[in-house]
Amino acid sequence: MTKSKNSQIKISFLGGVGEIGKNMNVLECGDDMIIVDFGVSFPNNEIPGIDAIIPDITYVKENVKKLRGVLLTHGHEDHIGAIPYYVDELRGVPIYGTALTIGLLKRKLEDDARKCKLCVIAEGDTVNLGCFSVEFIKVCHSMSGACALSISTPAGRVFITGDYKMDNTPIDRKKTNTKRIAQIGKAGVLAMLGESTNVEREGSSTSEKVVGNTLENIFATNRDKRLVVACFASSNYRIQQVLWLAKKFGRKVVLAGKSMKSIVDVASNCGQLEIPSNTIVEKAGKLLPGETVILATGSQGEPLSALKKLSQGEFNKINLGEDDLVVLSSSPIPGNEKAVYDVINDLFKKGANVLYDAMNDIHVSGHAYSEELKLMLSLVHPKYFFPVHGEFRHQFKHAQIAESMGIQKRNIVVAEIGDSFGVSERGVVRHATVPSGNVYVDGVALEDGERVVEERRSLAEYGMLMVICAVNMDTGTVESDVDVVAKGVGLSSDLREAIISSVYDSVAGTDFDGSDVNDVAKNVKRGVRKLFARDRKFPIIIPVIVEN
Amino acid sequence: MTKSKNSQIKISFLGGVGEIGKNMNVLECGDDMIIVDFGVSFPNNEIPGIDAIIPDITYVKENVKKLRGVLLTHGHEDHIGAIPYYVDELRGVPIYGTALTIGLLKRKLEDDARKCKLCVIAEGDTVNLGCFSVEFIKVCHSMSGACALSISTPAGRVFITGDYKMDNTPIDRKKTNTKRIAQIGKAGVLAMLGESTNVEREGSSTSEKVVGNTLENIFATNRDKRLVVACFASSNYRIQQVLWLAKKFGRKVVLAGKSMKSIVDVASNCGQLEIPSNTIVEKAGKLLPGETVILATGSQGEPLSALKKLSQGEFNKINLGEDDLVVLSSSPIPGNEKAVYDVINDLFKKGANVLYDAMNDIHVSGHAYSEELKLMLSLVHPKYFFPVHGEFRHQFKHAQIAESMGIQKRNIVVAEIGDSFGVSERGVVRHATVPSGNVYVDGVALEDGERVVEERRSLAEYGMLMVICAVNMDTGTVESDVDVVAKGVGLSSDLREAIISSVYDSVAGTDFDGSDVNDVAKNVKRGVRKLFARDRKFPIIIPVIVEN
Repeated sequence: MTKSKNSQIKISFLGGVGEIGKNMNVLECGDDMIIVDFGVSFPNNEIPGIDAIIPDITYVKENVKKLRGVLLTHGHEDHIGAIPYYVDELRGVPIYGTALTIGLLKRKLEDDARKCKLCVIAEGDTVNLGCFSVEFIKVCHSMSGACALSISTPAGRVFITGDYKMDNTPIDRKKTNTKRIAQIGKAGVLAMLGESTNVEREGSSTSEKVVGNTLENIFATNRDKRLVVACFASSNYRIQQVLWLAKKFGRKVVLAGKSMKSIVDVASNCGQLEIPSNTIVEKAGKLLPGETVILATGSQGEPLSALKKLSQGEFNKINLGEDDLVVLSSSPIPGNEKAVYDVINDLFKKGANVLYDAMNDIHVSGHAYSEELKLMLSLVHPKYFFPVHGEFRHQFKHAQIAESMGIQKRNIVVAEIGDSFGVSERGVVRHATVPSGNVYVDGVALEDGERVVEERRSLAEYGMLMVICAVNMDTGTVESDVDVVAKGVGLSSDLREAIISSVYDSVAGTDFDGSDVNDVAKNVKRGVRKLFARDRKFPIIIPVIVEN
Repeated sequence: MTKSKNSQIKISFLGGVGEIGKNMNVLECGDDMIIVDFGVSFPNNEIPGIDAIIPDITYVKENVKKLRGVLLTHGHEDHIGAIPYYVDELRGVPIYGTALTIGLLKRKLEDDARKCKLCVIAEGDTVNLGCFSVEFIKVCHSMSGACALSISTPAGRVFITGDYKMDNTPIDRKKTNTKRIAQIGKAGVLAMLGESTNVEREGSSTSEKVVGNTLENIFATNRDKRLVVACFASSNYRIQQVLWLAKKFGRKVVLAGKSMKSIVDVASNCGQLEIPSNTIVEKAGKLLPGETVILATGSQGEPLSALKKLSQGEFNKINLGEDDLVVLSSSPIPGNEKAVYDVINDLFKKGANVLYDAMNDIHVSGHAYSEELKLMLSLVHPKYFFPVHGEFRHQFKHAQIAESMGIQKRNIVVAEIGDSFGVSERGVVRHATVPSGNVYVDGVALEDGERVVEERRSLAEYGMLMVICAVNMDTGTVESDVDVVAKGVGLSSDLREAIISSVYDSVAGTDFDGSDVNDVAKNVKRGVRKLFARDRKFPIIIPVIVEN
């Protein structure tokens, strides 16, 4: 591939910057476009009643003719989760990922999988898409099949780390391919997009193997207790270690939770999980506590998960108590703390012992700490650096690290969602922002999600109030009782009286000459609003004026 | 004081167990009752639109004739904050605390302070209230004037730790009075209520002095930058150290935020804050960045705080940028993470550098870590132990520690809110639970707060939907357009059509013989509800049927 002096790569950020989650980048060069990752975010309490947030892909739709393929770095929701919502838009577009990534995507797509052009590649493979040549490079992460991407183009090479860590003792012995990354770095990298998730953590992350040691210790010292281990269903390494330990200590494993069962199925089918013979059983049945491990979903306190049900005595008639040791092999994702701790509190109340986050080495992160980020930067040694995957503070801290590693400050770009840059040997040029943003999913993708969410926030904060009455438009008088319906409003009888008399006042104060029922309603609304505004409360007020 | 064999102390938990915040205990012995702490909680997003949560004090009101006094361990909101809501109930009841505690309470009470009988005591003082004799014992915490209480009664002694830490180098040289605590322990303690906040942290907490060293280093190495230090206004030690350093490094301090100004005033008036001469100025004016420290509220990302305004360029026309170093000398209270990180992200975006939580030694906790908890348990050596101030998981972990320290498991009680126990040398007897719970404050204390909050949650999750139409009750037909008003509901045109036709169906399906307009409304509601329930959505549905 020859480098053209006039060409540039346009990199647009549709997600994964200024926020955690919903990772998505669009790369264009000449008449070709590729997408790297296609993720979803899960909302916190500030976005009530919303199942998921997916990227606005207007920009992709506008340029769909140039789209040569979608490349997935790995199979976590924040990298693949939006695809099921855009199956029609992606019809005929090849989607590339390693076996586990594509396996997990297929599971999410269900019947829609047949509409998609899913392509399994192996670590080390190169995919040619128009003028792009994309090499998948093995990196360690909290699941198998994670890859960094080295993307060659006529304008130069872009290196996208994806999610990664440097694990020197991975349980499958497949380390991050630092040799290949070093080669690529030496050959020259124009721009690097580097993940920033754990930039705030000093030093290096702990090996997955260490969790295995902790778990082994737990198995060895709790031989009479039933063990419940909760982790992400997608953490195939964690699950693998539990399965091996169960075999070693003569326990049977019950898979608890729908996604635990189906993901174990996917992972073992694609060779990323070894299930020792006679280890997994359907139900604990008459097994003694010391003969059982329950491997459960719900490490984030999810409402319908197996662990949540166990904590409430609502799972398979299992009543946890003093014979049980529950291990949360996880740490709460920011925003989930309360849900997680509610479950832990309930488990303690049932009499079970619980080991969780606060204990060391029961969980390790899949994301590089600051020293690992430095190692990656020194291996890749890019000319331009874009810190990604994080809130701004992570990106800025990662930028500070890059600067300390000798990358010139003007060659470091902290991007926001919608930003688009032309990158070439001559420099980084800011393009016009591209359409971008959040599409809220409430069952289906909402057309006017922003408005819906705004109204819900307002309803949550202040509630709503309806006043109903009949007005004689000829005489200008109220001709019925005034009915006040309040939801989410604390209404003392004094306040209720004040509302009713304000309605009478508003009707009486309306000039009925030339007014219609809408004018009456407006006045009524204004009068009621005033009563609340003086206390700085702003319930949604809906006047229903029936014309008599 | 002689011990009576037949007497017992009744200890009731109106707050501070099974939850963080809202600390309140009621102790009764014979015909006397005292209250220890009277705190408030601040709600998270799960309790929308609520300013504060205060304890239900029905039980206190029922026994108010026995009430001899209120004892405050220190001046934090979760120990004094509910008093302003119960001024009438506490009329004539003496309220005891050290100077800073009572000073802060007075400030909160504003004009109501004159209705209250506020009594300032000194560390080491003993107060006699009926058969109770209460000694205030100096403990270190994140503010001055914190005390543990040693409460002698005819039935034995109760020791309440309050919030505390063991600081061997406190900046005012006043250590936790371990000698006196050891004496009391040796004399014999029947029951101890011990705080559990930091039970999950191994080892011992760091001295407040260490933060001073870190801050000094920051002052010394950023001489040209404007410094913004954000901390709790009530952290008088932290503020003291900033004031001393400002003097040392020739900077002027601007107090930013209403509560920062007023609490600095309270603390200095009661001798708990030394303000170096010519250090505090009203505005930065023409001072250079290197000559200024802004001491700001908002370390928890509070919406109207000085730091939040600074992050948005809305404070005193100060535009933060590359000349600024912002130090958050704090760590996010659980639930506040998003608000705090939003501010940090915004500060970074403005170009300022930000030092926060993730950095070591920029903040220390005021609560004992596990080794300090062990020290306290071995000093007090109680017969019965009640772990308090924490969620259940903290209480259970603290119970485990107590057991490991040799307290018998059956003598350790993990209490829940409303629990009440009779404690005597002969044992701990569980009494009937006492009225207790949350009273929600939304401007005023709500009478039916639970319902209001439940409705708000439902509105937040699903929104609300109103259908309005006129029905001729003689002919049983809809005689107007069907009006659909949706708030917080994502309504496609298909769904809107389906709602309207379901209304027609429901009216048509009503047997008008013997039905009134309420029956029609019920049917309409049921019909609309079905449309949503199939997608597991449950908006609040309000049918308005006008009788024609």
